[in-house]
Amino acid sequence: MKFFKLPIATTTITSICLVWLAMAGTAAAFDDIVEKQVFEMPRYTTVGGRTIEKVRIGWESYGTLNEAKDNAILITHFYSGNSHAAGWYDLEDPQPGYWDTIIGSGKAIDTDKYFVISSDTLVNLNVHDPNVVTTGPATINPATGKPYAMDFPVVTIRDFVAVQKALVESLGIRSLHAVIGASMGAMQAIEWGSAYPKMVKRIIPVIGTGWVNAFMIGSFHVWSAPIKLDSRWQGGNYYDSEPPVDGLKESMKMIGLQGNHWEWTDEAFGRNWAEPGKDPALSFENQYEIEMVLEALARKRIAHADANHFLYLAKACQTFIAGHGSSLAEGLAAIDSPVLLIHTPDDLLFFPDYVRQTKALIEADGTSARIVEIDGKQGHADGIISIGQVADTITGFLEK
Amino acid sequence: MKFFKLPIATTTITSICLVWLAMAGTAAAFDDIVEKQVFEMPRYTTVGGRTIEKVRIGWESYGTLNEAKDNAILITHFYSGNSHAAGWYDLEDPQPGYWDTIIGSGKAIDTDKYFVISSDTLVNLNVHDPNVVTTGPATINPATGKPYAMDFPVVTIRDFVAVQKALVESLGIRSLHAVIGASMGAMQAIEWGSAYPKMVKRIIPVIGTGWVNAFMIGSFHVWSAPIKLDSRWQGGNYYDSEPPVDGLKESMKMIGLQGNHWEWTDEAFGRNWAEPGKDPALSFENQYEIEMVLEALARKRIAHADANHFLYLAKACQTFIAGHGSSLAEGLAAIDSPVLLIHTPDDLLFFPDYVRQTKALIEADGTSARIVEIDGKQGHADGIISIGQVADTITGFLEK
Repeated sequence: MKFFKLPIATTTITSICLVWLAMAGTAAAFDDIVEKQVFEMPRYTTVGGRTIEKVRIGWESYGTLNEAKDNAILITHFYSGNSHAAGWYDLEDPQPGYWDTIIGSGKAIDTDKYFVISSDTLVNLNVHDPNVVTTGPATINPATGKPYAMDFPVVTIRDFVAVQKALVESLGIRSLHAVIGASMGAMQAIEWGSAYPKMVKRIIPVIGTGWVNAFMIGSFHVWSAPIKLDSRWQGGNYYDSEPPVDGLKESMKMIGLQGNHWEWTDEAFGRNWAEPGKDPALSFENQYEIEMVLEALARKRIAHADANHFLYLAKACQTFIAGHGSSLAEGLAAIDSPVLLIHTPDDLLFFPDYVRQTKALIEADGTSARIVEIDGKQGHADGIISIGQVADTITGFLEK
Repeated sequence: MKFFKLPIATTTITSICLVWLAMAGTAAAFDDIVEKQVFEMPRYTTVGGRTIEKVRIGWESYGTLNEAKDNAILITHFYSGNSHAAGWYDLEDPQPGYWDTIIGSGKAIDTDKYFVISSDTLVNLNVHDPNVVTTGPATINPATGKPYAMDFPVVTIRDFVAVQKALVESLGIRSLHAVIGASMGAMQAIEWGSAYPKMVKRIIPVIGTGWVNAFMIGSFHVWSAPIKLDSRWQGGNYYDSEPPVDGLKESMKMIGLQGNHWEWTDEAFGRNWAEPGKDPALSFENQYEIEMVLEALARKRIAHADANHFLYLAKACQTFIAGHGSSLAEGLAAIDSPVLLIHTPDDLLFFPDYVRQTKALIEADGTSARIVEIDGKQGHADGIISIGQVADTITGFLEK
């Protein structure tokens, strides 16, 4: 969907952007225009046993909940993502939600049929994005009147899912037609299936696996390091001073590079210099184009991000094992609904071997599991940007 | 070779460790005991056009140079390595040189036949190791009486090779039977073949490619970041104060993790906790075993390392393209000697596709090139630790 493309389908989105309506000067509903909503819980007690008062998370919806309330599909987001999975906030938006290719009227996840809910997680990275609503270390602790910082409880993927369950139930929904998510969203989809097997009818984990392995635990460890090395981090207590943006930027560069692929970086930038006439072999000041691009992308990606939230997300990912018990086999066997695993063989974060092992462990007790592949040049990121390739497969899986 | 294993072969090593002799109280030569030697140049002008006064690099040799001086094999080292490729400095050494498996009397690189030279590079990482001799940012600049720090000229793989050429020529050697090196050492081996095609008869690049691609340039960029984020780095001017060991440690963790493989990390550590009873899901203080291991390994690996040297090595790797011109095809076509490329399909740093492309470009003008694979569970590191698998192939290639 391009910026100026007019909507063809009739209105299927329930949330109408008031800003846009004011601008347009008309009361006519505009397809694909969405607004953020907020779900609040007076308190939530984490799996680890700590209670957080006044938990808030943002969510969006696309399509209409039917009377039986059994046509809801939940979308769970990736590490640096948020609940804006489809549609546009207003006509000025440079781009729609990240999976707009597959969510909408007549699309793979057809909003003419399904009521699609997408939710922000706890400790969402982009807490300073006006379109993100989350609760985490940057949130004011009601007990002190100051941000929690590193006093915020450690939260896990199970906690993300438990809060989503409360959101879903607040809408009167007792069963989800499907849960779909990419990367960290795949962890949530799998955890939904493991934690609440009777509540989920289908699971689509995209570019993700049933647990985070030792190599990934190590990766999250090293990606977190730049933040802690930034002298402005101060053990997380930077909310009254300058935040550790330099460290956060380097952390984002790392995760961004590994979340992509050399096919893309080589084709797009190769060994090009950042500036003509400035040979990188002559000075540390002179860089290659890929370095400049990593810098620019990371700078853009941290505009609304919070460093402590990055650390909490890294921790949540590190601690992920389906079912959150000691046995992966049991955690995955707890899943009773059919699973469609979508991945790319070029994924440099969630390795194909582990997707296959996830499938095998889900299937072990007879649950149906299937793998389909996405092809592309951007590795892990193809799970977001090239999802359109498997649109028909998703449609078929949802209709079964 | 184990610590207490007695040498079986007769003496083939020319350099006898005086320390050991004093300890043993005998004049008998001891097989595999080596000593570091030093090569000095009054001055060296870099490819970039800057002159360094009084360049010194360390080297070792194993075996005897024949009268024709045509049995020399040069070993070029990897990023965190040095010229200690084989043998033992003394009986107290916990382990021999890194490729002792294939270098020695009767081994793949047979010191009964060949005179094996191994050289430290410029800007060697472990400048504070008493067994490393190098010239780089930690070296005293004769012009100022203080360490160069970041005023040291940027040096490239071509510079490493040019200094090695001067070393080799100082021994009266006009032609090398072979150049062999792993990882950054493979870059040097390839550059030897491209820069001095008439002087090299065989090239064995192990776990390396003919150029550093955009993805790797980006990787070296992000691996360098922790050093620069450490407030003690101070733009490289830390030689009168505390060095940026925290940043350097994180940089080493990154390169160490990516230089290994998930097969190993999963089998060895999995999701084990660092300490019993300290669940990582409950506190940021609690870690997984893999995190503790990465920390311990990195701490050990930086004991003699210098942060600025790390940055200069990263820059040298980033700038590498065979021939150091603008055309990779020309740089690799300049190689006229047969090439044996050794790699592992599990390499997470130098991807197999690029090894194949390197081979194709070397072969393009009729030069013989061949690829053999190493199998293992430690990815890139298998090029060092599992080299014994291809010992016979190396022997055959050297005898042809």
